[in-house]
Amino acid sequence: MDAAVTPDPTVLDAPALIVAMGARARVAAGLLARTPTPAKAAALAAAGAAIRDDAEAILAANTRDLARAEAAGLSGAMLDRLRLDAARLAGIADAVAAVGGLADPVGQTIDETRRPNGLVLSRVRVPIGVIGIVYESRPNVTADAAALCVMSGNAAILRGGTEAVDSNRALHAAFARGLASAGLPVDAVQLVPTQDRDAVGAMLGAEGVLDLVVPRGGKGLVARVQAEARVPVLAHLDGINHVYVDGSADPTMARAIVLDAKMRRTGICGAMETLLIDRAYPDPAGLIRALASAGCAVRADAEALGVAPDVATPASDADWDTEYLGAIASVAIVAGVDRALAHIAAHGSHHTDAIVAADEAVARRFLAEVDSAIVLWNASTQFADGGEFGLGAEIGIATGRLHARGPVALEGLTTYKWVGLGTGQVRG
Amino acid sequence: MDAAVTPDPTVLDAPALIVAMGARARVAAGLLARTPTPAKAAALAAAGAAIRDDAEAILAANTRDLARAEAAGLSGAMLDRLRLDAARLAGIADAVAAVGGLADPVGQTIDETRRPNGLVLSRVRVPIGVIGIVYESRPNVTADAAALCVMSGNAAILRGGTEAVDSNRALHAAFARGLASAGLPVDAVQLVPTQDRDAVGAMLGAEGVLDLVVPRGGKGLVARVQAEARVPVLAHLDGINHVYVDGSADPTMARAIVLDAKMRRTGICGAMETLLIDRAYPDPAGLIRALASAGCAVRADAEALGVAPDVATPASDADWDTEYLGAIASVAIVAGVDRALAHIAAHGSHHTDAIVAADEAVARRFLAEVDSAIVLWNASTQFADGGEFGLGAEIGIATGRLHARGPVALEGLTTYKWVGLGTGQVRG
Repeated sequence: MDAAVTPDPTVLDAPALIVAMGARARVAAGLLARTPTPAKAAALAAAGAAIRDDAEAILAANTRDLARAEAAGLSGAMLDRLRLDAARLAGIADAVAAVGGLADPVGQTIDETRRPNGLVLSRVRVPIGVIGIVYESRPNVTADAAALCVMSGNAAILRGGTEAVDSNRALHAAFARGLASAGLPVDAVQLVPTQDRDAVGAMLGAEGVLDLVVPRGGKGLVARVQAEARVPVLAHLDGINHVYVDGSADPTMARAIVLDAKMRRTGICGAMETLLIDRAYPDPAGLIRALASAGCAVRADAEALGVAPDVATPASDADWDTEYLGAIASVAIVAGVDRALAHIAAHGSHHTDAIVAADEAVARRFLAEVDSAIVLWNASTQFADGGEFGLGAEIGIATGRLHARGPVALEGLTTYKWVGLGTGQVRG
Repeated sequence: MDAAVTPDPTVLDAPALIVAMGARARVAAGLLARTPTPAKAAALAAAGAAIRDDAEAILAANTRDLARAEAAGLSGAMLDRLRLDAARLAGIADAVAAVGGLADPVGQTIDETRRPNGLVLSRVRVPIGVIGIVYESRPNVTADAAALCVMSGNAAILRGGTEAVDSNRALHAAFARGLASAGLPVDAVQLVPTQDRDAVGAMLGAEGVLDLVVPRGGKGLVARVQAEARVPVLAHLDGINHVYVDGSADPTMARAIVLDAKMRRTGICGAMETLLIDRAYPDPAGLIRALASAGCAVRADAEALGVAPDVATPASDADWDTEYLGAIASVAIVAGVDRALAHIAAHGSHHTDAIVAADEAVARRFLAEVDSAIVLWNASTQFADGGEFGLGAEIGIATGRLHARGPVALEGLTTYKWVGLGTGQVRG
């Protein structure tokens, strides 16, 4: 460096910051890993109570965030994600305490075997260690992710979006005070103290410091994290989900599932984006018209357009690879389950795909051959959710192939160690 | 590109090669994933038989590799790793067939739950997909890794070391012919047809093409793979393994375990590198002298040097972080299990660590607090091996924290999907 150049003291050394936070987190993780279940549950109850106690300060902080966001011209949808009110905040506090009531995976024995030499080997679940959460404008993630990490015995390093900076600081302060009041290490949940984008880069490159990064947010964020990360990532980029309606499907069931999968909530990752209708299905026009009547724009291939030309427009090539996250569906008529499988293999995103069929052999084939985190028979894709799966909560849905797939909650935030109990065994 | 420059046709487009091999592997993986257990076992029996049938050609190829390696001045240890003979080749063929007899994890139900709405959700084991194996001079890896991948329903892309190129081609040709004779896709196991180092780089960067890379070889190879890979990696870099002898340990047991852990085979990753002796242990000199008498060089801290100055030399700071893979041990006397835990946390490599103790409370603490893939009580670290763990075989030992830890065999080469069986459920 040119000796005449004085370093700008306002420029942060982001990697050094993350290493320092990570070192404190590693110590806290060691303590958390050995904290008994009731102590973790009590700490989360205290954190929930602290959030309720701080409601006034948290809502005031949120008001500041909202004012800045409105002045910056953020969209109504983004403002809604950012906004807290008394009811939403009470829901956040309740959710934190509720995570403390979930079954604790830490210490569970996965399996155990006694070897012929008498050595008893078991695999015991242990926390992963230090988990980074990178998220956008939803302040509830601060509390939700922290609660899941603490309950699974992991330390968390949180990096929320700039829009929500005041809300996140206020929520984090309450959460940390609750943890500390219950005797847990305050470094168990740390909030990155800068909005410098370099801090995200430093987290993504922090091999050996962070054990896992979970991005929570839109496609831009997730794509950046997946592209840059040297640390393992648990996430999904797209939810290009299909419903295939087989010729054997009951039409009433098919209509109900298709409408729910697309229209119950159009903006969630489990929403159907593409409807594939078997050429043998008796009433394709009925399905297409039901979608259109419910307010869904239908982009159809030539054959589907032919059966309901008045309510559909032609699909472009890009439509089959598009996650609309809105009231739009692409619809194709296909020659049976083979073509449906080929379409999903070519265009799916390995998230959630469903078949509606009365023919069990066809359904079993679909369940076996579709290579997605979640495959469903005669049920709506909108069930793709940790709560609906009975996990109590979720840190996210993963479409990668390793470690955990689909909705990830406490168990997915653990790993295992092999524990061997001997009586002096040597290999000799 | 300058129009006057003609591309050199001998320069390989390594990424395009790996993408093309990966596309064929993906198709084969789809077929393998649905191949019933008996068909996979029959194919591995046929592959083993083909290796036996081709013994003459494989051994001739190996002789060519050995001649080149000797001319290049390779060390005796490397020549030994490279060398095949009739007995070793028969062992390789038997091992391939034996993998077909292991329990097949594919299709196993991990857990199942019925939701209040009647939806039945289960997690079912499925293969990971396409697995790259990058290895060095041991030709047996060609057959071992291929067999484990096929039995777990995965397609394999193999890239062996240049020294073993003829042996690997001959083994691969036999293996592939065996698979094909049993009706399995020949693309299930492909050998990268070039020794260009760019091919390894292309494998490590092949996100979405390879689902996992397993490096098998020395520290240089594993370090390169871990540093460069954009694809998930299953591996260990170091096995800096500790035995802690507590004050409560039975001296006869302690001596037997320490000698076995260090000296049974000094070159394997499960070998002890550092011995930690509790200050309260009655006979530290006996342990140190036993190692020295067995031919082990002892590098001791000041206190350990003091009890056996005639058989030890002073350890340097670097010794505590060194994997000797030879008849050398570093030895320290520590003030109880707390100091042992701190030493292992500071210097261990998260592979395998053991305690010898009669005091169960101390042992349980060690097992809980040492953050390694394998922790053992009153047993030798040399048990760190898939065969000894009852897994039948192993693709390697993993010291990462996600997906699989410790010895990895068939189950570690699978993932799962969520399968939901409904009767028309919608979220509504």
